[in-house]
This record gives sequence, structure tokens and C-alpha cells, in this order.
Amino acid sequence: MSATLPHDSIRAVHFEGDVLRLLDQRRLPHEEIYIDCRSAADVTRAIRDLAVRGAPAIGIAAAWGVVLEAQRLAASGTPPDAARLEPTLAQLNAARPTAVNLAWALARLRGVLARGPADALAALTQEARAIQDEDLAANRHMGELGAALFGDGVGVLTHCNTGSLATAGFGTALGVIRAGHIAGKVKQVYAGETRPWQQGARLTMWELVRDRIPAKLVADSAASHLMKSGAVQWVVVGADRIAANGDTANKIGTYQLAIAARHHGVKFMVVAPFSTVDMATPDGAAIEIELRNPEELFGIGGQRNVVEGADAWNPVFDVTPASLIDALVTERGVIERPDAAKMRAAFGEPQPA
Amino acid sequence: MSATLPHDSIRAVHFEGDVLRLLDQRRLPHEEIYIDCRSAADVTRAIRDLAVRGAPAIGIAAAWGVVLEAQRLAASGTPPDAARLEPTLAQLNAARPTAVNLAWALARLRGVLARGPADALAALTQEARAIQDEDLAANRHMGELGAALFGDGVGVLTHCNTGSLATAGFGTALGVIRAGHIAGKVKQVYAGETRPWQQGARLTMWELVRDRIPAKLVADSAASHLMKSGAVQWVVVGADRIAANGDTANKIGTYQLAIAARHHGVKFMVVAPFSTVDMATPDGAAIEIELRNPEELFGIGGQRNVVEGADAWNPVFDVTPASLIDALVTERGVIERPDAAKMRAAFGEPQPA
Repeated sequence: MSATLPHDSIRAVHFEGDVLRLLDQRRLPHEEIYIDCRSAADVTRAIRDLAVRGAPAIGIAAAWGVVLEAQRLAASGTPPDAARLEPTLAQLNAARPTAVNLAWALARLRGVLARGPADALAALTQEARAIQDEDLAANRHMGELGAALFGDGVGVLTHCNTGSLATAGFGTALGVIRAGHIAGKVKQVYAGETRPWQQGARLTMWELVRDRIPAKLVADSAASHLMKSGAVQWVVVGADRIAANGDTANKIGTYQLAIAARHHGVKFMVVAPFSTVDMATPDGAAIEIELRNPEELFGIGGQRNVVEGADAWNPVFDVTPASLIDALVTERGVIERPDAAKMRAAFGEPQPA
Repeated sequence: MSATLPHDSIRAVHFEGDVLRLLDQRRLPHEEIYIDCRSAADVTRAIRDLAVRGAPAIGIAAAWGVVLEAQRLAASGTPPDAARLEPTLAQLNAARPTAVNLAWALARLRGVLARGPADALAALTQEARAIQDEDLAANRHMGELGAALFGDGVGVLTHCNTGSLATAGFGTALGVIRAGHIAGKVKQVYAGETRPWQQGARLTMWELVRDRIPAKLVADSAASHLMKSGAVQWVVVGADRIAANGDTANKIGTYQLAIAARHHGVKFMVVAPFSTVDMATPDGAAIEIELRNPEELFGIGGQRNVVEGADAWNPVFDVTPASLIDALVTERGVIERPDAAKMRAAFGEPQPA
């Protein structure tokens, strides 16, 4: 793949020889520390403990974890075949069972092994490299497609982190913003801090400052006041799952941004790889929303600031109805005002489970 | 005044003999520590350094600060008259120049002194007590008026802290919620954490847990998902300034809640004492919104979690247009769907400045 471009300097996942180096996202923005994974167990731990996050990045890391185990087997004179690698595939798959791209990437490696290649190690290495390279290429393509929708000199608001840190590089929603800035169309980015985990504050702001893209952090609750001021023309967000009618599950707070955007006549764009589209889920009502531990809302960085005995309601995701989405961007193209008919036309009929 | 009631146990401002005791709100919820103020200078410092916050509570504390200085003068054999007390009045007034109730309370004490009472100390003490008692009575009255609007078994979402801590007791918006719970109508309260200062997380949750009112903390960005779930029927908030057409300035995030409430058919109530109504300000566009230091968004409790070199946009307030307000409650009554004509009818024509 090509080298990094201006305003695109960050790569969180590197495979070199016999080491997978992962930028430890738990330490950002305080420290830029890479973790060296030299075994599949190291990679499993890095995924489970959130050193690497973002569905595409997790899938890529897991693929390299399988390669590391294949290298170990080959070095000990044991052919790395499907049967011998299955425990490793299962272990990696269990590291974060809800991440769609993790299972998807491992299924691709299983497919390679099922073909019984003469040199399994070489074939697995090639497939892992392809998964990583294809993700970066898809992001760059989505970046062009999404940025083409921007007018000149726009302000853009984003949420959570969907950038180089969450992918092989460039990013999905943040990739569109990056491409828009490179094209000279995006003059100002606003990043919502994204309570309770602060991915916008900790990670997106780190990417934007590092890549010299003009950015301001805003409280999640300031988004409507920002839109009223006329400072933003687009909200651009990622997705965790997109249903067959275009309803989109994403980080908590996304739905609120979509309502506010429509109220102010601000456009709303969802950017995600095709693998995020789930045609077997008819609509948003069929998407289960994970509730997490109330404790996550009781402080930041381990410092509690809520009284003992308090309770909290802490959903991680919400669902934005397709009717509030102006553009859905995948590497297969742009769907404006998505609905069930347009989704079927673009992605085909749902397959029986 | 009557003693505290069940679900109404908190009083942050106590005057006893020659000491003003203030519950230090900077230490909550970690510690319940009272500051003993024995001079007007002590009170000025407590206001300036945010040990006491909330416009009504600040006004009450300042009034007692004047009484403390009058006591000191009287004890030294000097009559506490208007001329001798003016430096103290000016000093207290400057402690937080933007707090409307501070100037209003001090103006009441100046009015007492202007009448040249035979026993100025007694007259000032009586007026300070009246300011405090009237605030509590107004809150209880607003509580009844607002709670009467609730149906049975409602869920209510609030924002920031408008409770006993911000007033002489009972609270404004939180007073309505408290009254609704005492009346058996409010079954569940949700408190938005209120970034960046966390008044909801730190203070409102402390009040609700302490007074055994069922409450859950939510991220500010989870409000729309909460409304969609059907869990809340009312949003109830306070106000910092209400313009002549009903447009209402309040803590950042309030406007976003009003948009989301209207989108979901959830009712939106503003609760504030009459002194918050500013008939000289025609509408929300005439209200200047204070922008504060970006640093306030860069962490919580002194722990920074945003990269060095980052910028932020940090407005403290926003304006909710009257068209999104279903009920405006003051101690003078309830205005449903406020507009300029209804405001004039309730509060009179604006006075020339």
C-alpha cells in the first residue's frame, strides 16, 4: 500500500516479520506506547483488554494472531493446518464475541485453510495482509465518496472514534472528514467528547491534533447549540450495525445528534464498511442494545464523582432511524435517504440464517 | 419555617447566632463539610470560590454576610448604618457579578438601610431571614404548581442541579420533582450528568440518593434514547434568565433536551423564581452566551484526558426557544406554552432601563 499522506500519519496496527505491534489505545493521549505481540495469546490479551479497539482494527489484529501461531508451528516443524490452528482461531474469536469484524476476519482465514494450501503459512500471511490492505483501501474509497458530498468550507461534527485508530488506517467517518480536509472542503471539525468512555476526547482529538486538522472538542450536550450557531453543515458518524431498512446502531448519543441535525437542517451521514450491513436484521427494533455497568458513568479515569449508593442507566449504543439519515456511505457507494428498497437494491435480499 | 419533610432533608445554608454555615459544594459528593463564615470577608470568599453555588443560595449567603458585618460594627459600639456597610455590600456584590440574585438580595438590604431603622442590626437580620424563608416558600409553592401537571407514575428527566443545594432548600426544578415524588406521582427520576462540571452527577444524584428518591444517572447523550424507551414523560429544568417572550437561557444541554422532548412527545417544563424573568430582554437572541475556558472540557477532577495542543468550544449556557416549552412555572403561577403576550399578561410590560 502507499505510504501515509499529509493529514494521515497514524497507523495503530503494524506486522513486521514475527511481531505484531499495536498502539496501546488505553494509554492515549498521555503516552504513545506500542505493545509487541509475539504469540496468538498476546494478541488475544490485547483485544480482550482493549489495547486495540474498533471493529476493523480488532479483525486485522486477530488475523495476525493466527499468523503468529502458524509461524510458531512451522518453526517447530509442524504443518500449520486447519485442525492445529482451530484452538487458536476459537480463542481469538472469543476475545470479544460482539465485534462483528473479528468473526468475519477469522472466517476468511478458515476459508484459506479449508483450501489446503501447499504453504499454509504463506497463504495465511497473504490473507492477513489482504484483510489489512483492503480495509485501508475501503476507507480511502469511502473517504472520497463521502467527501464528494461536502460543499466548500464546511464545518463537520463527529462522534466517538472512527479514525485510523479504529481501522487499518484513515478511518470510516473520520476518514471522510480526513478526505474532506485533504480536498480543502472541511475547514473546521468538531468532536463530541463521547461520554462515558471519552473516545472523542481521548482518541479523535489525538488523531486530529496529530494530523494537523483544525478541530475543537465539544461537550456532547453542546451539539444542538453548535448547530444553531451555523458552524456545522454535516454530522458524520460510523456504525456498529446497519439493519436491512437502513436503521443504524452506533455509539450512544448518535441518535440525539440525528434528531438535532434534522431540527436544524444539518445533514447527517453514516459511514461504515459493507461488512457492517446486516441484511438479516429487518430494522432497528430488532437490534439489541447492550446495557453496561453503571460504574462506567460514576467517574473518569478511576476518580469517582458520584455518591455511593447511586444507580445509573448506561446504554452503550442507540439506534438512529433511517428516516433521519441523509447519506449512507459504504465502499460500494452512497445511498441517499436510505430505506428498505434502496438497501435491497444495493446489498441484495437477506440470506436465510 | 417548618422543619424538613421526608425526601427533603438538605439545607446548605444555616445562620445560627453569629455564624453562617455553608455546605461546601466543592467537596460533594466525597465529603459533607460545612464552612463556618464569621465575617463578611469569609462569605465573600465562599461565594467567589464556589463553596456555595446556585443563584438563590448565593443571594441568601450574601445577605447573611451583611448581617455578620453589622454584628461586628454593633459589637464595637458603631451603629451599622448605610454608609458604614456600603464597602461590605460592594465587596459581596463583586464576588460573582453575573449572579442576578446576588445583586437582588443586596438591593433588598440597601432598601432596609435606606429606611434608617432604629435598630439596623435587627432590621437587617429580619430581612436576611425573610429572603431565606421566602425562597424556601417560593420553592415549595412552585413544587406544588409543577407537580400538579404530572400524571400518575411518571418518569422525569432533569439537568444540572436546581435542588436544595442551589437554593434555601427544596429547589426549583428539583423541587417540582421532589414535590411530585412526595405526592406519589413521580416514580423514577433520571439525572443528566451535565458535562463539563458534572452538577447532575455530583450534586443532583447526591441530593436524590440522600433523600431516598429513586434516581438513575444518565449520560447527557443518552437522553434521546431514554425518551424513545418511554421511560420519561417530563423533562424538568431550571433557568438562568427568561426573556420577555419566554425564551429561556439555562445550562448547556437544556436546548438539546427540549428538541429531543418535542421529537418524542415528552413534555418540557421550566421552573424558576420570578426574579429570573427579565422583561427587559426581548428574546433569546438578546441573551449573551458565556464561553468559558476550553480547559474545563479537558478532564474531570484535574485529570487531563485530551492531547496537549487541543482546542475546545465550551459554551456554558444555551437558549431554549419558548416554542419548545410546554410549561413555565414561577411562584406566580404556571404559563402553558409561553409567548410574549402571555408573559406580558403575567409579568407586566417591560420597564424602561
